[in-house]
Amino acid sequence: MTTHTFTLTVSCADQSGLIAAITGCIAQSGGNILNLAQHTATDIGMFFCRASFAGTDTFTEERFSTAFSAVADSFRMDWQFFDNNKKKRVAVLVSKTSHCLYELLLKHADDELDCDIPVIISNHPDLAHIATSFHIPFFQVDTKKGKEAYEADLNAILDQYQIDLVVLARYMQVMSASFCERWDKKLINIHHGFLPAFKGAKPYHQAWQKGVKIIGATGHFATEDLDQGPIIYQDIIRIADTCSVDEFIRMGKDVERRVLVEAVRRYLAHSIFMHDGRTFVIE
Amino acid sequence: MTTHTFTLTVSCADQSGLIAAITGCIAQSGGNILNLAQHTATDIGMFFCRASFAGTDTFTEERFSTAFSAVADSFRMDWQFFDNNKKKRVAVLVSKTSHCLYELLLKHADDELDCDIPVIISNHPDLAHIATSFHIPFFQVDTKKGKEAYEADLNAILDQYQIDLVVLARYMQVMSASFCERWDKKLINIHHGFLPAFKGAKPYHQAWQKGVKIIGATGHFATEDLDQGPIIYQDIIRIADTCSVDEFIRMGKDVERRVLVEAVRRYLAHSIFMHDGRTFVIE
Amino acid sequence: MTTHTFTLTVSCADQSGLIAAITGCIAQSGGNILNLAQHTATDIGMFFCRASFAGTDTFTEERFSTAFSAVADSFRMDWQFFDNNKKKRVAVLVSKTSHCLYELLLKHADDELDCDIPVIISNHPDLAHIATSFHIPFFQVDTKKGKEAYEADLNAILDQYQIDLVVLARYMQVMSASFCERWDKKLINIHHGFLPAFKGAKPYHQAWQKGVKIIGATGHFATEDLDQGPIIYQDIIRIADTCSVDEFIRMGKDVERRVLVEAVRRYLAHSIFMHDGRTFVIE
Amino acid sequence: MTTHTFTLTVSCADQSGLIAAITGCIAQSGGNILNLAQHTATDIGMFFCRASFAGTDTFTEERFSTAFSAVADSFRMDWQFFDNNKKKRVAVLVSKTSHCLYELLLKHADDELDCDIPVIISNHPDLAHIATSFHIPFFQVDTKKGKEAYEADLNAILDQYQIDLVVLARYMQVMSASFCERWDKKLINIHHGFLPAFKGAKPYHQAWQKGVKIIGATGHFATEDLDQGPIIYQDIIRIADTCSVDEFIRMGKDVERRVLVEAVRRYLAHSIFMHDGRTFVIE
Repeated sequence: MTTHTFTLTVSCADQSGLIAAITGCIAQSGGNILNLAQHTATDIGMFFCRASFAGTDTFTEERFSTAFSAVADSFRMDWQFFDNNKKKRVAVLVSKTSHCLYELLLKHADDELDCDIPVIISNHPDLAHIATSFHIPFFQVDTKKGKEAYEADLNAILDQYQIDLVVLARYMQVMSASFCERWDKKLINIHHGFLPAFKGAKPYHQAWQKGVKIIGATGHFATEDLDQGPIIYQDIIRIADTCSVDEFIRMGKDVERRVLVEAVRRYLAHSIFMHDGRTFVIE
Repeated sequence: MTTHTFTLTVSCADQSGLIAAITGCIAQSGGNILNLAQHTATDIGMFFCRASFAGTDTFTEERFSTAFSAVADSFRMDWQFFDNNKKKRVAVLVSKTSHCLYELLLKHADDELDCDIPVIISNHPDLAHIATSFHIPFFQVDTKKGKEAYEADLNAILDQYQIDLVVLARYMQVMSASFCERWDKKLINIHHGFLPAFKGAKPYHQAWQKGVKIIGATGHFATEDLDQGPIIYQDIIRIADTCSVDEFIRMGKDVERRVLVEAVRRYLAHSIFMHDGRTFVIE
Repeated sequence: MTTHTFTLTVSCADQSGLIAAITGCIAQSGGNILNLAQHTATDIGMFFCRASFAGTDTFTEERFSTAFSAVADSFRMDWQFFDNNKKKRVAVLVSKTSHCLYELLLKHADDELDCDIPVIISNHPDLAHIATSFHIPFFQVDTKKGKEAYEADLNAILDQYQIDLVVLARYMQVMSASFCERWDKKLINIHHGFLPAFKGAKPYHQAWQKGVKIIGATGHFATEDLDQGPIIYQDIIRIADTCSVDEFIRMGKDVERRVLVEAVRRYLAHSIFMHDGRTFVIE
Repeated sequence: MTTHTFTLTVSCADQSGLIAAITGCIAQSGGNILNLAQHTATDIGMFFCRASFAGTDTFTEERFSTAFSAVADSFRMDWQFFDNNKKKRVAVLVSKTSHCLYELLLKHADDELDCDIPVIISNHPDLAHIATSFHIPFFQVDTKKGKEAYEADLNAILDQYQIDLVVLARYMQVMSASFCERWDKKLINIHHGFLPAFKGAKPYHQAWQKGVKIIGATGHFATEDLDQGPIIYQDIIRIADTCSVDEFIRMGKDVERRVLVEAVRRYLAHSIFMHDGRTFVIE
């Protein structure tokens, strides 16, 4: 029998006794803590904590929720509670470029992404064969019917597959404010530039023009402000001035796919806390 | 008034209820946890934990020690307790090369190493002027009088200055087994190679001969087995095959000084746990 | 019309006038140099040079070879001459692990590996479906028939497909001395450890036991001495002491696939020079 | 007798026969090429080349200059010619922060920066003692007398010491357009942010607010547009979201000092080519 495990995340203003209160409540409810990560952001006086624990025989979700609600109220905590047996359902949106899609599918196939990927959606037919070879339903949406109608189609598919998280894997469409709002904090994009530099189109061309010596990619929550949403993960690669823009693009692909997977992995691990427009990723 | 803070480190066999017991005891003794880091090494079933906390008005060291002893006994914990107001006293041993010594002194001068450096010792006179310019006593020891007599001199100086940690900052003498034993887990060496490869003399020459594409340095506890002691920190630098051995040596210096300071920093932060001959550095 | 380009590689003892002699001969033969990389290894007095050039209307391979032979003789040069229109034919050997195979095939599909991959060979049937989905013939060899007979089968397939380079993409069989000799400098292996440390079996377990803080992978020419052949490319990843061996294995896969592709890329670009048992990779 | 060596740099529109013409002229003038680096930027059709060579008995600068002028004219080359025996004279400007100054002085003392450092100038007295301990004249300038008068003082000192390159080593004053113009391409600044992101004041605070996961520093030619001049070198460090702004500042110092030294090193090696507002650093 596999152990049934749960994850609790807490954020609140910093104050005395937080960790003892959290760990005490878990213990008294019959939970054995497996892993606890905690950070106090002294610059802003905020406390963030994630605890994973196994439920013993006496543990029930209802009892714990009741008990922890009282603790949370007394400390004015924001908290979330996850049953780790319930896998998140992730939809991948793509256009014509395959490297990010392949990366997600291969990591998933190797049991390195703890989620289900029940559907792949695209505005082009080009990558259908990849979906097929991984036995995942593929839908092509028609952006020409107008943003509102097309996004309604998109939402219908996402709802049908009971999607928890939408991943834009080099999906070359700007999402509307209402779509971003609907999927607030559940919509991860990969931008092929080191944000906040090089927002918008053709970031590798921008980087080449500027003569930077290092290029990067950024995994972030998509918001209505293009390429401005909260950053989840970034990575870089050093480039030589002997590289052409085409070589930037080639070398950048490895960074993009790695960054996207790492961003999704942190989401699935409940490691991402939000405060005042930025993330605090606590590992 | 500065807050009086303490650090508790615990290691023991993994079992249920450890974190709740530790954090509960701290809270009941009047301690407010500022930071808690914990790791369960599933490969070997070991638990490691470090908690830093502030003492409130009701907190006394004696009361806490008594209370925690009972907890520790019931879980068979190894534990250590540190008053963060008492700075560690660090002696630096050098030969003729200055880059590691300068790094320690400059970081210390910039308040980036939380220790005192009351003495510098060398088997050569060359770096005395650096000690002078930082107003630190400098002693030259005479290795020619025989290892036993010379190490007795060394120990006399270290005892006189009530040294807690000895740092070999490119000190070109092999220490005896008895010296290593006397300073067990309190003797940090920087080796200019990426251990376990390239032990012993002239590691950059060995690396060049082998044609490796990356070179490194290793900060480790010195033991009687030369360059085999438990590793604390490592870092590397990519080198081109167009580099000469002399360029390896030049480039390696930056890695060595960085690695040594990071190893010492982890020691001073009580981040290093030992088990079965290797370190677990929990940050 | 695409330009017809050629690559010339030269190695010899260092002496005056080498670059002028090489570039002068190319120019006089009607070649326009596109790229020239050169290195003088001062530690051993050796000169290495690679020049790529376009042939103008008056250029013929025969004429150039005759002219350059005279130059090469006078300077006692070792030299090789490649027609860049003739793609190298690469065979990939695999066992049960797919990440290195996928990496080679995906980079090839994205036109990022300048070669043909006409055949995939394995000692297991597990990865046949990947070969199928990329429309590449797949052969399963039977290692149980004895090393000599099985390697004869292997060589028969490699000969049938006129293979220039054999890539061991996590192929879990030790090759015989005679096979290594037959494919001398044409047999690239990926070892999942940072050589020369952690040779042989289970390098990630060895690394975990030792408590190293950085793990790596090594792409090298396979020789009869297991995991001791000349190193072509290496890369590393920093690991935390909170990682399990299983996490080393997961994280290491990304390093392995990247290192293998980069090693193959350098081979295809004629960037690898050999001297006295080590490589000089000149980019 | 040390060999007398020279360095030639060439940039021009790409065309056939450039390398053969350059290397042929050097050979015919009695020069033995020691090292040649070349890059054709295909995106813009530009050719850049740097050749270092030793002069044999028959070599004279005058003869070479005359001969190469003819070559350069026929290909419309921009070129520069340097006698490597004549060390560049570098002035370091500082304010109150010492880490970049120390780095330059320590590298210089270890013979790792091929220049003279005849003078240190500051707008504060705080770092005078460092200049003293390295036996270098220290001047304090008075910024309160108005930018024009104070920069005239600055220029007088720089002229007196026959300075070739001015290094702003965390010098906290914005230079006037006319000063930047006077020292065009001879004025290197270290910015403690990863440009083009986080220009201007308090870049680490900006980075923390934005929640980036990697911070960096940029060595660049200073121009009248603050923190916008051509980039010479950049490096980064990964930071955790558990870091405070103060920790960004501490960790950033190591990146800043490394980047500044590497930028200066590339200048001294004549590795920096300029075209259309960006650098091409060819190593």
